[in-house]
Amino acid sequence: MNEITLIPNNSLITETPEEGRKLAVHIARLIIKLTQPDEEKRKEQREIYANDPMMLIAIGQTVATEFATIAAANNYWQ
Amino acid sequence: MNEITLIPNNSLITETPEEGRKLAVHIARLIIKLTQPDEEKRKEQREIYANDPMMLIAIGQTVATEFATIAAANNYWQ
Amino acid sequence: MNEITLIPNNSLITETPEEGRKLAVHIARLIIKLTQPDEEKRKEQREIYANDPMMLIAIGQTVATEFATIAAANNYWQ
Amino acid sequence: MNEITLIPNNSLITETPEEGRKLAVHIARLIIKLTQPDEEKRKEQREIYANDPMMLIAIGQTVATEFATIAAANNYWQ
Amino acid sequence: MNEITLIPNNSLITETPEEGRKLAVHIARLIIKLTQPDEEKRKEQREIYANDPMMLIAIGQTVATEFATIAAANNYWQ
Amino acid sequence: MNEITLIPNNSLITETPEEGRKLAVHIARLIIKLTQPDEEKRKEQREIYANDPMMLIAIGQTVATEFATIAAANNYWQ
Repeated sequence: MNEITLIPNNSLITETPEEGRKLAVHIARLIIKLTQPDEEKRKEQREIYANDPMMLIAIGQTVATEFATIAAANNYWQ
Repeated sequence: MNEITLIPNNSLITETPEEGRKLAVHIARLIIKLTQPDEEKRKEQREIYANDPMMLIAIGQTVATEFATIAAANNYWQ
Repeated sequence: MNEITLIPNNSLITETPEEGRKLAVHIARLIIKLTQPDEEKRKEQREIYANDPMMLIAIGQTVATEFATIAAANNYWQ
Repeated sequence: MNEITLIPNNSLITETPEEGRKLAVHIARLIIKLTQPDEEKRKEQREIYANDPMMLIAIGQTVATEFATIAAANNYWQ
Repeated sequence: MNEITLIPNNSLITETPEEGRKLAVHIARLIIKLTQPDEEKRKEQREIYANDPMMLIAIGQTVATEFATIAAANNYWQ
Repeated sequence: MNEITLIPNNSLITETPEEGRKLAVHIARLIIKLTQPDEEKRKEQREIYANDPMMLIAIGQTVATEFATIAAANNYWQ
């Protein structure tokens, strides 16, 4: 496994739901970066994602799952 | 990451299940907006979604996952 | 977002598991209705769903996720 | 919604994990029955499912999600 | 439903995470066996699975969901 | 089932979220290794994964599900 950081700041705790949501997006993207380390290829792939409705929905599904974990970790910011 | 709001009002707490459900739909759509910021392209994609049964089911799956988190955050509005 | 009701009776609480399951199916369908408001098109899509094994399985997946939330909300009707 | 029973015995509680697993399979199949009420067509679809590796995996995914709910409802039969 | 055992030893409890993971794989495979009881056909399907990257990922998704349940049942072996 | 280790160190407990995330990636990959034990074929498949946007998203989905379990096991490293 190449050595990129997978969890920024090594913590799931955020101050707000908004920051938690950004973290969910971020850690989802870092798994893609881990699997496809080539920056140039990822840039091409982003173009594909952004223009494919089914892929956009699938990205949403992944972020939703990551966010569920982060929200629970933060006790839903209550 | 471009600077759009991902969690409206920066809170998962809503007064009712109905509002929680709307929030689930909303935050799911904001991930699509984040990934495809072009309003015109998203409008075209919505036309594709709305007429593709499999995509409609997949949207339902994503909303269900987001709603699970929001419902838990609100202790199921009990 | 057009103004259809997304959570009937604005509650996740049901008297029985059977009613909870029906609610899960109902709220899953309302997301499809929200995304494709045209009654006639939805009717055509239902014909497609009902005859496509993979779509039937995917519908089952979505209902399962919705039901998990409703079951938790009702403390599993214990 | 046509009037088939969606939760046999109107309960998620089972005596054993084995029975809970059978219930998970059963309620997953009942959603398919609800969506495609025609017995003959479902029989044809089962032939398709059983011979399509991806569909078999997807069925497994749905059963896993249903089982998670039933297992939680039974406090994991502890 | 034909009479194969779906939960070996009729229990989700295992001594270790490793055994819990094996159980997750096992119960996922038993759903496939239930749906496709023909040993010869399943053998052919395994050949297809093992050589299709998307199917391998989907198998991983199913095992992950089963494992979540088993891990919770064992209180994460703490 | 061939005898590879499925849970390294036979534990879901990690010191940090970063290590927990690596474990999530690792155990997801071990299921692929279990299903496709041929090192050479897996290497070819990785090339396919890394260049297919939809597969990359699906890998992210699987890792998210594994991570949810590991994060819960570690009480979210609080």
